Amino acid sequence: MSEAARDRILDACARVIARNGLRRFRMQDVAREAGVSIGLLPYHFGDRDGLLQAALDRVNAGAADRARAEAGDEGPRERLRALLLSEFGDDPGVREGSTAWNELRAAAVFEPATAAALARSTAAWQGEVERLVREADPEPCGGDPAASARAAALGLTALVEGLSGRWLTGQIGVAQARAAIDAALASTGLGPAEDRDGSA
Amino acid sequence: MSEAARDRILDACARVIARNGLRRFRMQDVAREAGVSIGLLPYHFGDRDGLLQAALDRVNAGAADRARAEAGDEGPRERLRALLLSEFGDDPGVREGSTAWNELRAAAVFEPATAAALARSTAAWQGEVERLVREADPEPCGGDPAASARAAALGLTALVEGLSGRWLTGQIGVAQARAAIDAALASTGLGPAEDRDGSA
Repeated sequence: MSEAARDRILDACARVIARNGLRRFRMQDVAREAGVSIGLLPYHFGDRDGLLQAALDRVNAGAADRARAEAGDEGPRERLRALLLSEFGDDPGVREGSTAWNELRAAAVFEPATAAALARSTAAWQGEVERLVREADPEPCGGDPAASARAAALGLTALVEGLSGRWLTGQIGVAQARAAIDAALASTGLGPAEDRDGSA
Repeated sequence: MSEAARDRILDACARVIARNGLRRFRMQDVAREAGVSIGLLPYHFGDRDGLLQAALDRVNAGAADRARAEAGDEGPRERLRALLLSEFGDDPGVREGSTAWNELRAAAVFEPATAAALARSTAAWQGEVERLVREADPEPCGGDPAASARAAALGLTALVEGLSGRWLTGQIGVAQARAAIDAALASTGLGPAEDRDGSA
């Protein structure tokens, strides 16, 4: 399968989840939405949870792409900020991706196979955040730098997930979600570089 | 209806949601679980969303009770910490309450009436956190104290929600969730009083 076809299927998967929720999710709806034969899906993605995990990874990759487009040549602090902020936006694709994640998180409480897929995708995303935190702050004051980066990455990604739920249920807007991320970065000493000496 | 009967129904409601998820939620299962007549529920709670909101408020009240038992006579910082930490625990009732919240947050993305109930319960909880933040830090450095407390309350409660999803899906344990809350409190200058001068 071409990469374009694969991406088309995974984007269709996020769209189907965002439209109807996971409770009415059927692989054949994804095939129809993507305009491909239903037989392609098990062949390339295995079972339902294989497809769901690939769709989450694709949402993550999309957020990373947007972040790179936003902060490509800048330092790790700008890239970290862009990666976290890229989870919120007015683009329908951003909302679809966020809704798909949100649905899988909810379903995973009751479905061990979904929980395993979710845990793998979450670990990949949180690992990328942790890598940027270590680059942004290689010598945090006090403690083991690796443990400190791991803790910061958990706090930041869990905050994004919490804010995502608020945003998707209409309790806050994109700007408010982004401001909360900026506040968390600033308070953990991971804000944009110019904040470090208070000149911003 | 006696307060005890009301509490029994709302605890049964959280238990039913935690067992089967919201997708199979039926008011008659709540009545059966609580051992009351089905007719009582619409009479006292109105429709499904009225019952769900009352159940969320009851979960909140339970968390506030546990926090008071934990930090009753201590200062606002200890009470704030206890309130946030009380969302995570090994007691089955704590997990049931957290699961019910998690399910309602997920459903609210697709159901406007559930979103309205969720927003009211969330606002009440966040308002209590905001009140404690203002008591704990009446003069934050820089900016409007009210806006600052509101932003801190949003960040802290969204973090709790994100961590709750991680915990309920088995990605982190109670201790890790609590450590993340402590880290967020410390980095926003809202940690327990003895941290203020670095003596802890």
